[in-house]
Amino acid sequence: MLTQTVAKAAQDKAAEMLASAGIQLTPHERAHIEIAEFGLGELHQTGLELITYINTDRYCAKELVLFPRQTCPEHRHPPVGADPGKMETFRCRAGKVWLYVEGEPAAAPQARVPSGSEAYYTVFHEIELNPGEQYTIPPNTLHWFQAGDDGAIVSEFSSTSRDESDIFTDPRIKRLPEIVED
Amino acid sequence: MLTQTVAKAAQDKAAEMLASAGIQLTPHERAHIEIAEFGLGELHQTGLELITYINTDRYCAKELVLFPRQTCPEHRHPPVGADPGKMETFRCRAGKVWLYVEGEPAAAPQARVPSGSEAYYTVFHEIELNPGEQYTIPPNTLHWFQAGDDGAIVSEFSSTSRDESDIFTDPRIKRLPEIVED
Repeated sequence: MLTQTVAKAAQDKAAEMLASAGIQLTPHERAHIEIAEFGLGELHQTGLELITYINTDRYCAKELVLFPRQTCPEHRHPPVGADPGKMETFRCRAGKVWLYVEGEPAAAPQARVPSGSEAYYTVFHEIELNPGEQYTIPPNTLHWFQAGDDGAIVSEFSSTSRDESDIFTDPRIKRLPEIVED
Repeated sequence: MLTQTVAKAAQDKAAEMLASAGIQLTPHERAHIEIAEFGLGELHQTGLELITYINTDRYCAKELVLFPRQTCPEHRHPPVGADPGKMETFRCRAGKVWLYVEGEPAAAPQARVPSGSEAYYTVFHEIELNPGEQYTIPPNTLHWFQAGDDGAIVSEFSSTSRDESDIFTDPRIKRLPEIVED
């Protein structure tokens, strides 16, 4: 659950980070930055800010903003009908992001698993992305990511996005936002 | 036909424009900026500079660079097998671009058709894109575009790219580059 005040402050901060990176938005996009709070009530620890530029039945493109050390929690994109599951390319535009996928775990992961949620982080194969670097995540692959100390901006290029189908490791998580008046 | 000297100078200029817009490349991407000269021998009038970030059987993302008043000539992306043809979203990141597609023609188009190629520009429905603005071109739709006086950078999000299948209105055009030693 997210209050309007918290959501508005997060939109302002995300817009500022995007502007600093030279990424321009239309006024409509600026006013509709999506705040994904994941239902845990700890947006600055577990959350993500997004702008969906385009999402068709063929492809999708988004800009993702992560505040300093903010984490997008572990999830996967399962097959949906004839679709084998969303495939995503993350391209770091600013800041630093650590991405974790299935595979050989890092001996000493650089990201810090959000406190209180340790049970719900299970993959630790680490990819560090700095500006200009990118990585493509196969469909139906568990992944999570966290920004470095200065936050991060990540362009996501992908097949069709169906956020409502995402499967999170943490059963407490709600992907679709609940915003209430405060 | 493009000489190595011309190609190298165009790569340098494109890299400089990208850097000015805050868009980071890896050294490998920087060294492999694609120069599309279209075979007309007039790169700064008819040409395009590209970086393909990712091109899979599901989606594609590129960064396009246009020098001042440079034009990407009229073409369409036809169906290929089960694919109904490439669908593209152009998002202007820097500068200004005029995009022309099928539809009601502009009374006074702002772009200038490349001199000597007037016969091969047939669609004049005008969309002006400034930073943060975007437009999605349906499959198999004729389109061409030209940058304003300061050039432009355009992010292209699309379905799978099959450049070799593109159909240009101008029969003289070769999409795939021929670079020779000079």
